[in-house]
Amino acid sequence: MSSERLAAYLREVRREVDAALERLLPAPGGPAGRLVEAMRYSVFAGGKRLRPALVLLASELCGGARELALPPACAVELVHTYSLIHDDLPAMDDDDFRRGRPSCHKAFGEATAILAGDALLTLAFEVLARPPCERHAAVLVAALARGAGAAGMVGGQEADMDLAGEEPTAERVSFIHSHKTAALMGASLRLGALAADAPEATGERLGRFGELLGLAFQVTDDALDAEATSEQLGKTAGKDALCGKITYPAVFGLAESRRRAGAFAEQAIAELAPFGPPADLLRDLAAYVVGRNM
Amino acid sequence: MSSERLAAYLREVRREVDAALERLLPAPGGPAGRLVEAMRYSVFAGGKRLRPALVLLASELCGGARELALPPACAVELVHTYSLIHDDLPAMDDDDFRRGRPSCHKAFGEATAILAGDALLTLAFEVLARPPCERHAAVLVAALARGAGAAGMVGGQEADMDLAGEEPTAERVSFIHSHKTAALMGASLRLGALAADAPEATGERLGRFGELLGLAFQVTDDALDAEATSEQLGKTAGKDALCGKITYPAVFGLAESRRRAGAFAEQAIAELAPFGPPADLLRDLAAYVVGRNM
Repeated sequence: MSSERLAAYLREVRREVDAALERLLPAPGGPAGRLVEAMRYSVFAGGKRLRPALVLLASELCGGARELALPPACAVELVHTYSLIHDDLPAMDDDDFRRGRPSCHKAFGEATAILAGDALLTLAFEVLARPPCERHAAVLVAALARGAGAAGMVGGQEADMDLAGEEPTAERVSFIHSHKTAALMGASLRLGALAADAPEATGERLGRFGELLGLAFQVTDDALDAEATSEQLGKTAGKDALCGKITYPAVFGLAESRRRAGAFAEQAIAELAPFGPPADLLRDLAAYVVGRNM
Repeated sequence: MSSERLAAYLREVRREVDAALERLLPAPGGPAGRLVEAMRYSVFAGGKRLRPALVLLASELCGGARELALPPACAVELVHTYSLIHDDLPAMDDDDFRRGRPSCHKAFGEATAILAGDALLTLAFEVLARPPCERHAAVLVAALARGAGAAGMVGGQEADMDLAGEEPTAERVSFIHSHKTAALMGASLRLGALAADAPEATGERLGRFGELLGLAFQVTDDALDAEATSEQLGKTAGKDALCGKITYPAVFGLAESRRRAGAFAEQAIAELAPFGPPADLLRDLAAYVVGRNM
């Protein structure tokens, strides 16, 4: 596996997705200009564009056209960004920093941050309904909504919050991770497959890869929060334990968590067997998410 | 015009839409059960289902099938409900009561209220993408997103907030009203026309009716807030002036505001001329929104 090959690919995706997001986001100015400023502030905060890369890689693997995969790639990033904005709010995780700079509500106030999140979520669906995606709109919107909504990401955030302070159990942390993080990562790959008109079984397999990748990612995130400093993370570290959050380290300890993150990555990679070498960048990604230190 | 005929129609719509919403909303229970409870609490809080009625009336007028109009009718109500939940938050309008009972964040806490709003917005788009709407998904999702997002309702809420305390001018209040309220009402009728495969010009005309109706509605709302008691409104009255909100009464005074609300309703009704008697219930609605006292 080559981390250089992956790094080069992610740089290229980031350039391409950022340019597409620039075109999709409304222009600043007018009586609601502050809203647009806040949307742009958070979208262009230096994210790694991991989820868009998953959409594009799935589409490439299924022989899809780039121009049909780019809008869903942007849509998942818009959903991811909205979720970070709302998560950081004082009523939620109360984080003043995100990616090393003030979180949206610290920069623009809580009300604008709430509305900016709402507007980004709405824009995500709009992007899937407009040319060139209109032919796929129904399946794309349904897949994104399932990953992002009450049965996916938002449900996971609710459980993450409600279960804080409760006894950490394997069942509980599994529910939280599979909903909060894995659902949207799975949806990212499904969207790429759908945009490429891939057979349903292919989309399902890639979706399972994405969900396992998401689990590997979130377990690693939990471990990093327990180990790293805030400077390394670009956000407040050690908060999970402080807030009584149910995390992998809280249930299994740090060493076993790291081991299980690796096991999820291996299971994810196993799903890719039928695709052969063209899936190598996805394999690199699975290795990367458990090896990262931020 | 007959208010009895309208009242009977709205009762029937409410029954039908409530039954459809009951089927669409997730079932309570599970680790994220509180989220679903909060969604249901706010959706079934006794709303008049005015926007769903607009969708259904537009579809009927265009000869559309009921089963294709009911999902978009539910979708606009889900969007309306999410917007009320987020609007009531302490960081926004800080309203403890809505429709005579505790607002969502008073009943479930701020974090769950934020997430419930997010989940309802997501569900609204999901509903438009699923059977029996999948053939119309692209146009329905695009129309709802335009009415609900940064270029519509959310943009209007941002302006409403940001301009509070500024000099009330006709231009400013017009921007706020046309975005905050009129955009989603216009979208409601457009969705009905789209679900019925109506010609574009018909959808545009009905959309303009909806926007003018929305202006009549919001000017009346402003006047009611200035005149009525909290008991009459089921929410805190007199808040607009207290918060320095830019309203019609602030710009034009109360009497002139009432006159202009009537003028908007008349302009709305004028858009219906080509439809003849089948549009009578929409005419009744225009008369109703300016005559209501809650």
